[in-house]
Amino acid sequence: MVISVDAMGSDHGPSAIVDGIAKSADKNPDISFIVHGPKDELTRLITRRSDLADRCEIRDMPGVVSMDDKPSQVIRGAQGTSMLSAVDSVRAGEASVAVSCGNTGALMALSMIRLRKLPGVNRPAIACLWPSRNPQGFNVMLDCGADIRADAPDLLQYALMGAAYARNGLGVERPRIGLLNVGTEEHKGRAELRHAHEMILDAQETGNFDYVGFVEGGDLPSDKVDVIVTDGFTGNVALKTGEGTAKLVGAFLKDAFGNSIMSKFAALLAITSLKRLQKRIDPRRVNGGVFLGLNGMVVKSHGSADATGVSAAIKLAFRLAQSGFQDRLAERVARAAASVEETRPAPDEERT
Amino acid sequence: MVISVDAMGSDHGPSAIVDGIAKSADKNPDISFIVHGPKDELTRLITRRSDLADRCEIRDMPGVVSMDDKPSQVIRGAQGTSMLSAVDSVRAGEASVAVSCGNTGALMALSMIRLRKLPGVNRPAIACLWPSRNPQGFNVMLDCGADIRADAPDLLQYALMGAAYARNGLGVERPRIGLLNVGTEEHKGRAELRHAHEMILDAQETGNFDYVGFVEGGDLPSDKVDVIVTDGFTGNVALKTGEGTAKLVGAFLKDAFGNSIMSKFAALLAITSLKRLQKRIDPRRVNGGVFLGLNGMVVKSHGSADATGVSAAIKLAFRLAQSGFQDRLAERVARAAASVEETRPAPDEERT
Repeated sequence: MVISVDAMGSDHGPSAIVDGIAKSADKNPDISFIVHGPKDELTRLITRRSDLADRCEIRDMPGVVSMDDKPSQVIRGAQGTSMLSAVDSVRAGEASVAVSCGNTGALMALSMIRLRKLPGVNRPAIACLWPSRNPQGFNVMLDCGADIRADAPDLLQYALMGAAYARNGLGVERPRIGLLNVGTEEHKGRAELRHAHEMILDAQETGNFDYVGFVEGGDLPSDKVDVIVTDGFTGNVALKTGEGTAKLVGAFLKDAFGNSIMSKFAALLAITSLKRLQKRIDPRRVNGGVFLGLNGMVVKSHGSADATGVSAAIKLAFRLAQSGFQDRLAERVARAAASVEETRPAPDEERT
Repeated sequence: MVISVDAMGSDHGPSAIVDGIAKSADKNPDISFIVHGPKDELTRLITRRSDLADRCEIRDMPGVVSMDDKPSQVIRGAQGTSMLSAVDSVRAGEASVAVSCGNTGALMALSMIRLRKLPGVNRPAIACLWPSRNPQGFNVMLDCGADIRADAPDLLQYALMGAAYARNGLGVERPRIGLLNVGTEEHKGRAELRHAHEMILDAQETGNFDYVGFVEGGDLPSDKVDVIVTDGFTGNVALKTGEGTAKLVGAFLKDAFGNSIMSKFAALLAITSLKRLQKRIDPRRVNGGVFLGLNGMVVKSHGSADATGVSAAIKLAFRLAQSGFQDRLAERVARAAASVEETRPAPDEERT
């Protein structure tokens, strides 16, 4: 299994990314890497790690896509950048999946241009994992920010793609899907949501999922649902709000345990449990937004990801590639598109 | 100070609300109450509490607005309901502020009809408090769900109203305002957000606030900003997501401490610190959405609020009423509306 990694774009520089690659390489002997970035620096970083050089092929790419570049600027100036090269390795079939910490908008724009949308997909989406009370430990939410708009047919496609992700990525046989809204009553929310509600309801059987109806923000980490469908604006705000809240509670927890000698002593006693808790809510461990709806897999890692975060994104990429997710997703979307064709009356029938 | 309380609409029934009233009455000798609901039941609940009867006037209202009623149904059938009666006490000047746990959409609809919008306000908003790292302990977010739409001029008004709330409710002299978006770069987000960005920037001086620009979901609990402005759809999702995440982390924390004998012992040692933590993140303690932009104050409490939650909502209502917030807000909005009038060219000038 070959994974293509963009070595630039992390807030911590390429060393954090090479550290993440090394971490993943240590844990999983079945992965090798194509690493894209400035050759001299990468060679230095990679040869410092024993055995890593044998498993990494370096593609010398001096250009970097900056976090401030607009997607339109990126597209014009993409030639020679590590990001474009990382995506092109998937396009060329050299790697099963690409991982990048760079600018989300730029990565999506380049991925759409180079990999193209799957037949039948209008807007690709970014799917993220959300720690939850479900047995699988995570829920899927999409779109987390690929596109700030989504019409009812887009939301239906997100439901189909999210169901495929939950099946292949999380092993949920028949995923339960919810549509994010400001209330669970059927009359609530914007018109496109009420329309999408009907469409997703009708697609349950062909899509092999259960539709639970509208869900609210509080249901994102719940066990009522496995996949949450929403537009990319709302999804992005919800994702960052959840992360921000978890961080705040973590900081408050630290305050609480630093508060007195007694509580410091207690923290020492509880250190194993606290570490387990930290692991459960650590956003770095659920790092990795998966681009869905393209002819090829791309995983977006946080720009602020450190070695642990990068390694989590690589692990996710590996798991998805190994499950054959991409082919199944393509098949599912094609079948759904065909079934819409079938149920659509032929021009003749329409006229009668 | 008289506070008007709708005794119906809590998931825990009127007894939770009367318990909350009793809690507030105990803590604050300056409040008396007008309580709206079925007389016999309320009399029984109130007389059970020593001294409470002297401070409560009961308005016999047998009708209840259900959580499932659509706002349009509510308006037709509102006569004789505890909710309408609670709002009407503010309209009649008998009470300074109304508190209700009922259906948010219905409460807003009735409040708009009975209290009417402040001159110059197009869409009223619900402002909520968000635990934060700021010295005041909370940030303000609005709109949390009064209206699922907001245009650029609405978002500007939310900024003005939110600034007034932060000044009077939280004592922040010159509040810092942020506009919620999917990124902090100026080119990001929907067109109405980029337009609102310009409008709020221009209003800094007249509005007596500092505009920090776009903020993201992760900034809601941060100390970069005191007031976060957004539309009611996004605000509602963010609010519920934050609450859901805090609850999940709380549950994980409980798991962590119940995990082994050692950690149970540690929890015992740290009990004071853990209780303080719980208090800091307990959504019941920040319970109370304030309706802004009406001729009169209404505080919406969670439907799931227990006595602690109801008491927190009453405390917030009291603090705002005492600060003379309503008059200052009205003055501020009127002045802003006038200044927009002034800068608008006269019809003659426009033609030249």
